[in-house]
Amino acid sequence: MRVDGQDFRTIWLNADGEAVDVIDQTKLPHRFEILTLRSAAEAADAIKRMVVRGAPLIGATAAYGMALAAHEDSSDAALGHAYDLLFKSRPTAVNLRWALERMQAKLLALPQAQRVEMAYAEAARIADEDVTVCSAIGENGATLIEAIAESRAAGLPVNVLTHCNAGWLATVDWGTALAPVFKAHRAGIPVHVWVDETRPRNQGAGLTAWELNKEGVPHTVIVDNTGGHLMQHGMVDLCITGTDRTTRAGDVANKIGTYLKALAAHDNHVPFYVALPSPTIDWRVRDGVKEIPIEERSADEVTHMTGATARGDIATIRITPEGSPAANYAFDVTPARLVTGLITERGVCEASEAGLTKLFPEAEAA
Amino acid sequence: MRVDGQDFRTIWLNADGEAVDVIDQTKLPHRFEILTLRSAAEAADAIKRMVVRGAPLIGATAAYGMALAAHEDSSDAALGHAYDLLFKSRPTAVNLRWALERMQAKLLALPQAQRVEMAYAEAARIADEDVTVCSAIGENGATLIEAIAESRAAGLPVNVLTHCNAGWLATVDWGTALAPVFKAHRAGIPVHVWVDETRPRNQGAGLTAWELNKEGVPHTVIVDNTGGHLMQHGMVDLCITGTDRTTRAGDVANKIGTYLKALAAHDNHVPFYVALPSPTIDWRVRDGVKEIPIEERSADEVTHMTGATARGDIATIRITPEGSPAANYAFDVTPARLVTGLITERGVCEASEAGLTKLFPEAEAA
Repeated sequence: MRVDGQDFRTIWLNADGEAVDVIDQTKLPHRFEILTLRSAAEAADAIKRMVVRGAPLIGATAAYGMALAAHEDSSDAALGHAYDLLFKSRPTAVNLRWALERMQAKLLALPQAQRVEMAYAEAARIADEDVTVCSAIGENGATLIEAIAESRAAGLPVNVLTHCNAGWLATVDWGTALAPVFKAHRAGIPVHVWVDETRPRNQGAGLTAWELNKEGVPHTVIVDNTGGHLMQHGMVDLCITGTDRTTRAGDVANKIGTYLKALAAHDNHVPFYVALPSPTIDWRVRDGVKEIPIEERSADEVTHMTGATARGDIATIRITPEGSPAANYAFDVTPARLVTGLITERGVCEASEAGLTKLFPEAEAA
Repeated sequence: MRVDGQDFRTIWLNADGEAVDVIDQTKLPHRFEILTLRSAAEAADAIKRMVVRGAPLIGATAAYGMALAAHEDSSDAALGHAYDLLFKSRPTAVNLRWALERMQAKLLALPQAQRVEMAYAEAARIADEDVTVCSAIGENGATLIEAIAESRAAGLPVNVLTHCNAGWLATVDWGTALAPVFKAHRAGIPVHVWVDETRPRNQGAGLTAWELNKEGVPHTVIVDNTGGHLMQHGMVDLCITGTDRTTRAGDVANKIGTYLKALAAHDNHVPFYVALPSPTIDWRVRDGVKEIPIEERSADEVTHMTGATARGDIATIRITPEGSPAANYAFDVTPARLVTGLITERGVCEASEAGLTKLFPEAEAA
C-alpha cells in the first residue's frame, strides 16, 4: 500500500538477493525505517520484538526465516533448529506453525543442494499467496460496506470500527480487517474508520491510524473504552477485526479487548465481522475460551508507554506508581455466538463449523 | 486515608483559616503535592483541570469555592457570578449543581454580614457529610465482599475489578467504589483489586493504584481491554465502579468504558455493583442513554500521554501519527439492566426506580 506516494509491502527480498527487508513496526508511527534480517535468529527476534506482527506477516517472516537458515546451513539438523527457534518466538500464532510446517515439508523432501533455492522460492510464494488472499478478503468484505452505503443517503460515510492493527502492516499487503476498507475507499465508497488505540501496545493508534493516514482514508482515533458508547448512539455501522487464531467452531482469538467490542456490538445490533485468511483457522480446536492458551507478555508494556516528545525524540514514560504490579494478557477469545460473520478469501460465512466447512469442505475430514 | 503513614483528606481548610488546600491529583502518582486555592476562580480552575475530580470531591470543592467567593465579596451578584463560574467548570457533574444550590440557598437567605462564616461552616459540613456517607457505603459494600470470602477456602482473596478512580481521591475520604475494599481490607478480609488503567486519563493506573499501594491493598494494574478475558476465566468475583450520575431508573453515567465492563460481567454472571452517595442520583432523569449528554474533552488526552521518565521528570509524549484526528468522549451510560445493585449510604438496592425509591422514599414525589 501507499507510503508517501510509493508502494510498499511489509517484507521483501533485499537487493543482495539473500537478506530480507522488513518495515520496523516498532518505530511507527513516528519513524519509517527498514530493518534487514540476515539469519533465522534475527527473523525470530523480529517476530518476538514485534518488529513484524500480525498473523500473516509472522507466517511470511517465519518462512523467510527458514530461507535464511537454509542459506546458512541446509542440513536437517540446522533446519530443525531454525524451526524450533522460530516456533518459540510466538507460540500462539497458528500461521507461524503453518508456514514453518510447509517450509519444512518442502525442504526436507529435497536433497540438501536444492534446498536453498527452494527455500527462497517457497517463502516468496507464501508472501505472494498472502497478497492474493488479502486482496480477495478485501473484495469480499467491501461488498458489506457497499451494501450499507447503498442503503443510505449518498455521500454519508459508512462508519467502521476496528480493533488493533489488521491492516496491511499485519500482512504482506492489503491487510485483513482493513482490506475491505481500502478496497471500498479506492472504489469511491465513502468510509470512515473508528480506530481503537489498542492498549497496551497501541497498534491502533500507532499502526492502523498511520496506514489510514498514508492511504488517505478518513478516520478518528479513540481509546479502547469508547466503542460501546459509539454503538449505543448509532455511530458505528459495522465492526471488522482480524484474528490471530480461529477455531473450527468460529471462535476467534484476537487482540485483548476484541471480546468487549463484540459484546457491545451484540448489545446494540451492530454487525461484528472478523476477517481472516484461512491459514488462521486452527481446525484442531473447537472451544476457543477453554482450549486456546493466552500469551502473557511483559508487565512493562502496561506500566510504560513509548511515543514521540515535542522535539520528535522517541521516549518511554512510566504511567503507574512505583511498586504497583501489572498483568498483561495479550489476547482474548470472542465466542462465535457474538460474531456476525467471517470474511475469508473464499467469501463471507457464518461463524460456525457449518459455515466454515461449507467454504472449506477439504477441512471437514481434518 | 493513609499516605506514607499519615492520614489525609483530599480537601481541607488551610492553616490560615481562609484558603483551601487540595491534593493536586494531576501530579499523582509521580508526585504528592498540595495546591492552595484562594478564590472561586481558582476552585473552578481546579475542577476544570481535574486537579480535583470525582463527583463528591467536585461537590466539596465547589462548596469551598462558594466560601472563597463569599470571603472576597458576599453580595448576591458576586455569589451569583461565582455560582455560574463554578457550575460551568464541569456541567455534567450533578454533585456540583447539588452543592452549589445548597450553598446558594443557605447564603442568600442570610444578611450579607453573616454569609462568610456560614459559607465556610456549610462547606465544612458538606465535606464531613461526604466522609460519613462514604464510610457508610464502605460498610454496606464490605458485606458483599465478606459474603464471597466466607463462601470459599480461608485466605483465598476476593478479586474485585474496578474502573477509573472512585477511591478516596474522588471523594473527601474513603471513596465510593473503593470504600468497601478499604473497609474489607482493614477488617482483615483478603481482597485483591484488578485496576483498569482507564484511558485516556489513566485515573486507574495513576490514582487507584496509588491509593491501594499507599494503603497496602494487593492489586494489579491492567489495560482496559483485559476485564472481559479475566471474567471469562473466573478471575473476577465482583465489579464495583463509581458513577458520575445515576438516573432514577438506575442507569449510571460513569467514566467511558464502564458499559463494556458491565456487558462482560453480565455475559459471565459476575456481579456488577455501582457505589454512589445519594446526591449523585439525578431524580429528574430516567433514561440515561437517551437523556444524559456526554461531555467531549480535548483530543490531546487521547493523542498524548503523560508520565515519568526514567530520570523522574514528568514528560508528555504523542502516541498517534501527526495528522490523525482523535475523539474523546468522557463518559458512557450503563443501563440498569446490567447493574446487579447500587451500594448507597443507606444500603444496597436493586438498580431500578423501585429499588432506589425504597431506600430514598422522600424522592418519590420529586
